[in-house]
Amino acid sequence: MTRFDDHQLTAEVIRSFDKTRNPRLKSILTELVTSLHDFVRKTDLSFEEWNYAIDYLTRTGQACTATRQEFILLSDVLGVSMLVDAVNHRERDGATQTTVLGPFYVGEHRPTPHGSDISTGVDGEPMFVRSRITDLDGKALAGAVIDVWHADDDGFYDSQKPSYGKQGPSLRARFIADHDGRFSFRTILPRSYPIPTDGPVGELIGATGRHPMRPAHVHFLVQAQGYEPLITHVFLEGDPYLTSDAVFGVKDELVSRVERHDEPLMADGERASGPWHVMTYDFQMKPGTGVVPQPLLSAAE
Amino acid sequence: MTRFDDHQLTAEVIRSFDKTRNPRLKSILTELVTSLHDFVRKTDLSFEEWNYAIDYLTRTGQACTATRQEFILLSDVLGVSMLVDAVNHRERDGATQTTVLGPFYVGEHRPTPHGSDISTGVDGEPMFVRSRITDLDGKALAGAVIDVWHADDDGFYDSQKPSYGKQGPSLRARFIADHDGRFSFRTILPRSYPIPTDGPVGELIGATGRHPMRPAHVHFLVQAQGYEPLITHVFLEGDPYLTSDAVFGVKDELVSRVERHDEPLMADGERASGPWHVMTYDFQMKPGTGVVPQPLLSAAE
Repeated sequence: MTRFDDHQLTAEVIRSFDKTRNPRLKSILTELVTSLHDFVRKTDLSFEEWNYAIDYLTRTGQACTATRQEFILLSDVLGVSMLVDAVNHRERDGATQTTVLGPFYVGEHRPTPHGSDISTGVDGEPMFVRSRITDLDGKALAGAVIDVWHADDDGFYDSQKPSYGKQGPSLRARFIADHDGRFSFRTILPRSYPIPTDGPVGELIGATGRHPMRPAHVHFLVQAQGYEPLITHVFLEGDPYLTSDAVFGVKDELVSRVERHDEPLMADGERASGPWHVMTYDFQMKPGTGVVPQPLLSAAE
Repeated sequence: MTRFDDHQLTAEVIRSFDKTRNPRLKSILTELVTSLHDFVRKTDLSFEEWNYAIDYLTRTGQACTATRQEFILLSDVLGVSMLVDAVNHRERDGATQTTVLGPFYVGEHRPTPHGSDISTGVDGEPMFVRSRITDLDGKALAGAVIDVWHADDDGFYDSQKPSYGKQGPSLRARFIADHDGRFSFRTILPRSYPIPTDGPVGELIGATGRHPMRPAHVHFLVQAQGYEPLITHVFLEGDPYLTSDAVFGVKDELVSRVERHDEPLMADGERASGPWHVMTYDFQMKPGTGVVPQPLLSAAE
């Protein structure tokens, strides 16, 4: 470096990557530095602001624990996670739409019998889920593996609770599709809930006057040999937060009408103590390698 | 959010900042999201790469301690710190050039007598520093406050050592300019040294085939009432790393010829046991508010 204007500095930094062995890393770093430097120039970033950014990123890293990923949450609320999903799924060809994995997939890989109630010990209005896995032509994908997980009435996933690991899974299960591609289970009606706001992401949500709510949803991860793994949610029609999801995860095609029932006998023959619900949603799988990106699921077993 | 292409997603995220009370924050976040989203689109970032980035940022945050700031180091090696310096000092008007503060300023605010040896107990070749502080017209700035700090022969600052805080400062002092704007001290000749490479930044340096070295330098922070604080280094002419500083901090104007002497009596009359050196470098101050940005120096007392 010698006498420079700030564009020469950018060129110098990019030149410092000349010996990078991995060409993809070199191209990503070049784009990153171009982008970061343009950002600093366009905003004329002050020392105080730079210092705030350093401190903010540091606190975000330090808020991460074995059961909390604040950087994923930051990526989520800035729409980056959803954008990464979008650029990796540009052509759906009629397959079910994808959305973010979220930070709460922890893998519960023991297959559960169809019709099981996965909400044991959790309060809420009963909901029966009926689903079918097919290819793009409607052919049943027998043996497809379906992981489901969702939050309880207070907005917590079982992995966030102190009891996690000490008792069986709750609102989390794996099913194997039958010969006709079908599976079904009983759970509770999910509710909209806030993302955690006691860390740096909450600070951002507060400073921008945004609300922290996510509309009610159930997560699905569907895998079948010879098909692209499907990571998605099914949202509940009528939720007030469908148009303002804190993590920008909603797509129209993923919103499902959940039927409310008031009959005294529920779908499984049990006596109802109040209203109960039925969600019916089918998934169309796209041909692909059938392998879930492993690092993505590093929290899994 | 409803059916969207990925540009609609970006617009949606920017719209989520509509209620931000601080207009500067709103404008910075808008630029940040535009920039981040463009980066993801241009690189077609994969899930694995996004996941690596999340993990890298998390580890960078978790590498930070009371005496180590890995995010500042990351900002440094990507040229961002130097660029923030550049955009905040576009017009020098003949004043001394600035450079990065670096992560090792910790504030040692007890004035030291002129001529003092600040290298007590540290091995190295003696170096005598003579300097003068003036305004842009050459008028002496009596009473200017000068903080100096530099690394030892092994490349460590005193704040990095286990003994820090238990004994007096080492290679770190504050001087007050005399009636003619002058001050002087004795120290050791600084050497080039590597930035810390045992963390995520070292991983980046390794993957890009860069070296981690910084050319030898002494840090100066000069403050005078009615003048813009001056944060800079003086580098040593002839250093092999002047053109490839790991943090891009070198400017031609900051490189000083340090005279080598082999006379048996040194500048302070003491008997020499080997070669000794003289650095002469004067500083020109620019009119300004005279206040060092406080958050920048939050590590200081």
